[in-house]
Amino acid sequence: MSKSMISSPVIKRLPRYYRFLGELEKQGVIRISSRELSEKMGLTASQIRQDLNCFGGFGQQGYGYNVQELHEAIGKIIGIASDTRTVIIGAGNLGSAIAMHIDFKKAGFSLIGIFDSDPEKTGQIIAGIPVAQMNLIESFCNENKPECAVLCIPKESAEEIVDKLIRLGIKAFWNYSHYDINVDGREGILVQNVHLSDSLMTLSYGLHNFKKEK
Amino acid sequence: MSKSMISSPVIKRLPRYYRFLGELEKQGVIRISSRELSEKMGLTASQIRQDLNCFGGFGQQGYGYNVQELHEAIGKIIGIASDTRTVIIGAGNLGSAIAMHIDFKKAGFSLIGIFDSDPEKTGQIIAGIPVAQMNLIESFCNENKPECAVLCIPKESAEEIVDKLIRLGIKAFWNYSHYDINVDGREGILVQNVHLSDSLMTLSYGLHNFKKEK
Repeated sequence: MSKSMISSPVIKRLPRYYRFLGELEKQGVIRISSRELSEKMGLTASQIRQDLNCFGGFGQQGYGYNVQELHEAIGKIIGIASDTRTVIIGAGNLGSAIAMHIDFKKAGFSLIGIFDSDPEKTGQIIAGIPVAQMNLIESFCNENKPECAVLCIPKESAEEIVDKLIRLGIKAFWNYSHYDINVDGREGILVQNVHLSDSLMTLSYGLHNFKKEK
Repeated sequence: MSKSMISSPVIKRLPRYYRFLGELEKQGVIRISSRELSEKMGLTASQIRQDLNCFGGFGQQGYGYNVQELHEAIGKIIGIASDTRTVIIGAGNLGSAIAMHIDFKKAGFSLIGIFDSDPEKTGQIIAGIPVAQMNLIESFCNENKPECAVLCIPKESAEEIVDKLIRLGIKAFWNYSHYDINVDGREGILVQNVHLSDSLMTLSYGLHNFKKEK
């Protein structure tokens, strides 16, 4: 199947496969059937077979999947080894938490800079990286050519900064700013808008609608 | 349609509808057709009509949806006004970022306590709430009866803490700990496991597979 034909839900499931297979590998599991994997992941076995067939198929009928091979293969498909140079924009609580909490390397990225417009934050060391003044972003990008930006800035300043970063060569945005970046007419720009509250609201729905009556 | 019959993808889309409709309301939009809404949200118009029909339907053929009414109705379905009492476990960077960055009230929750086992964190004020020692969680829960816990602790300590919190009456977990809480056999316990890196890997996939050749 041509890669551009693979549907977005399948692509979104790839990191989950990668995570679960990594766990299984750590636990020393050698082979796993699509049925066993489906039980662990809460998908159907036929869904898993369909998903993996999009990328060429990795199992032999009746033999299941080799965990290590499949984990590696999905890692390659995701681009885990690509070390995409990445900057964080905004060194507040959220930017700091992301710098320290996220294993960029393990997801295919390499964090090379953190920027903030607040002079009081400049020079602070976060995850081993000194926070730089936002007005240095231009020269930094020209020199280091980052391709990905993590936006941890307020909604109000996001639009202007996105335009600037695209001019400076940023191709991918991991966006926590609550400003939905519109990619229409911006060919080759990739965006993942992160809305943390969405999953919190899903929890609220569950509490509100499924709570057991006493 | 019985609420227990509504599929999980539909439920997961509700917060997005709520968000988009809130934006439209702010912009002063009075009515919107399913076609216009679908363009904004990147869904098909028939998908939107199907989704909203699960909850009784809100539009009149040919008239579209009243934005304010639909926003309010979806807010009620989500349980936006329920103010579910919530504690954050773990006051590191991530716990602090979540306490300060998330509008709990707007998602149907009310943040009433933050706990950490590190004595150096105790007494720090985060989002207006003093961080309490983890060994006070039992008396706090008995007194204040929180129903939701946000887990911002390392994977290693999560399993034990989850068991304890369930005994203390926690019904819903918003889980950032990288430990996948298993709800099998734990009736009435709701979990949203948050894996921030998944959307980062999706970005890596895009960069790796769709990057324009120069």
